[in-house]
Amino acid sequence: MLKIPPHQVAGHQAGNGKLGPLVDESGRFYKPLQGDERGSNELKFYTSFSSDSRIPEHISKFFPTFYGTQLIEASDGSGLKPHLVLEDLSIGRVNPSIVDIKMGSRTWAPEASEEYIQKCLKKDRETSSLPLGFRLSGIQIYGNKESGYWKPERTSMQNLPAEEVKLILKKFVSSNTSTGMDLQPDCAFTATVYGGSTGILSQLLEMKAWFEDQTTYHFYSCSILIMFEKGLALEGQNPGGQIKLIDFAHVTEGRGVIDHNFLGGLCSLIKLISEILTAPNEHKSLVSSVNGVN
Amino acid sequence: MLKIPPHQVAGHQAGNGKLGPLVDESGRFYKPLQGDERGSNELKFYTSFSSDSRIPEHISKFFPTFYGTQLIEASDGSGLKPHLVLEDLSIGRVNPSIVDIKMGSRTWAPEASEEYIQKCLKKDRETSSLPLGFRLSGIQIYGNKESGYWKPERTSMQNLPAEEVKLILKKFVSSNTSTGMDLQPDCAFTATVYGGSTGILSQLLEMKAWFEDQTTYHFYSCSILIMFEKGLALEGQNPGGQIKLIDFAHVTEGRGVIDHNFLGGLCSLIKLISEILTAPNEHKSLVSSVNGVN
Repeated sequence: MLKIPPHQVAGHQAGNGKLGPLVDESGRFYKPLQGDERGSNELKFYTSFSSDSRIPEHISKFFPTFYGTQLIEASDGSGLKPHLVLEDLSIGRVNPSIVDIKMGSRTWAPEASEEYIQKCLKKDRETSSLPLGFRLSGIQIYGNKESGYWKPERTSMQNLPAEEVKLILKKFVSSNTSTGMDLQPDCAFTATVYGGSTGILSQLLEMKAWFEDQTTYHFYSCSILIMFEKGLALEGQNPGGQIKLIDFAHVTEGRGVIDHNFLGGLCSLIKLISEILTAPNEHKSLVSSVNGVN
Repeated sequence: MLKIPPHQVAGHQAGNGKLGPLVDESGRFYKPLQGDERGSNELKFYTSFSSDSRIPEHISKFFPTFYGTQLIEASDGSGLKPHLVLEDLSIGRVNPSIVDIKMGSRTWAPEASEEYIQKCLKKDRETSSLPLGFRLSGIQIYGNKESGYWKPERTSMQNLPAEEVKLILKKFVSSNTSTGMDLQPDCAFTATVYGGSTGILSQLLEMKAWFEDQTTYHFYSCSILIMFEKGLALEGQNPGGQIKLIDFAHVTEGRGVIDHNFLGGLCSLIKLISEILTAPNEHKSLVSSVNGVN
């Protein structure tokens, strides 16, 4: 029985007759293969990457498992359509908090079409991609049983200055309920989610070390997902913080050069999260005065 | 007594009635203050940086010492003009080999004028800046007393693919004479120039650690100079390999974000130099076949 993924925060979404990904109960995620070269490019990437013996296990774990392609009924009712069959990254999670971060100050490859380059360049300049090296593409933060999720408008997240992005990454690891998201974040789970030897920062640093070395793939317009379970954090358990890379429709060949565009954005994200870990409460007064709270 | 710098490899050059920098015998370098905002911006940077107490000594050593400004006779005969007074980086060097590497896949700041952005973007796309994260802006490689310097046309260096850039960075540390530059490079001084605890790679890594952390300056269109004395290397002495940062007319405020654009290019350069150190002779067969040698 296929259904609409309950925890998708960015990208094309199924429902209301629209084409989008579906999930089943066995933990598989069905992503419609886009009809143009984006679809063939993403399939080419998954096929190449999943059979690339040079990728160490501590890196391949950051990517969704690939199970090939399959013809299934498309979500928009247009009949059988080819889908990529991937690991459902939210399987086993109850109330995941998730942020989708589109990486790179440049979301276009040098060899893309002029029309596509101009479209991306305009968006990179209008959003925080250019100043920050990445932009927030979507987010959901679990509050509690009563308040549910805080899930702001996606476009409202894309063009924030560094201090605002940092504030959102603090809210992400706070115990505030979703109705309390306008208050200053208490940063209650900073150390348990971002910190520690298996926390988000450690995982980002592991990914960084690979990007400093690998010259096979350039990951244009690809996203890092950061996920964890606030419910577990509230109970004092390990919240299962995890990063995953998704969206490979614009991956190109590295041709012997590292992906300095992705890597630059990754270092920028690492710096922001390091600062939050070092001084989680540094901006409380700023937040209070902005919201008139105290 | 002011004269034209003997070892300038890029940028505006004095001589033939043109405006360019001059040097004196006491080790000072006089750079004409550009009349537009580039001049005021570069002066602002040197003034701010040289009084910034947060810059540790192991980082400030990568920058030319700043001695203020001075009115001197301009090289183009136009009379007294304000000049930045800087350390002459080639002082004490006899026959330096020098490469000027313009850093970043993007040489324009987000806040630059539309006209300037379009001009830079075009050049970044036409050169190796976009694919590599940097471009070679100029080079001189000392051969020996008889052959002098190999100093190819500057524009011929700017749009090379990664393998060709790597080849030039191998020639840079080879004992080939300047007349033998078409032959395969012997990479004789790879370890002594690029390697070792005080070599070029170590210095680049020291600079990288700072760029991963500092959020004060964004160094658009700035260059790394790499210099050493082949004469000393030939005599088995320490060749004095050194990196320096120059050209700060387009530095902007970091606003709490790292310079991911410079850092990405720096990591790309570090990767290429690491590969040369690991396998200096890997491409000999390619070089031989290209040049019809063997």
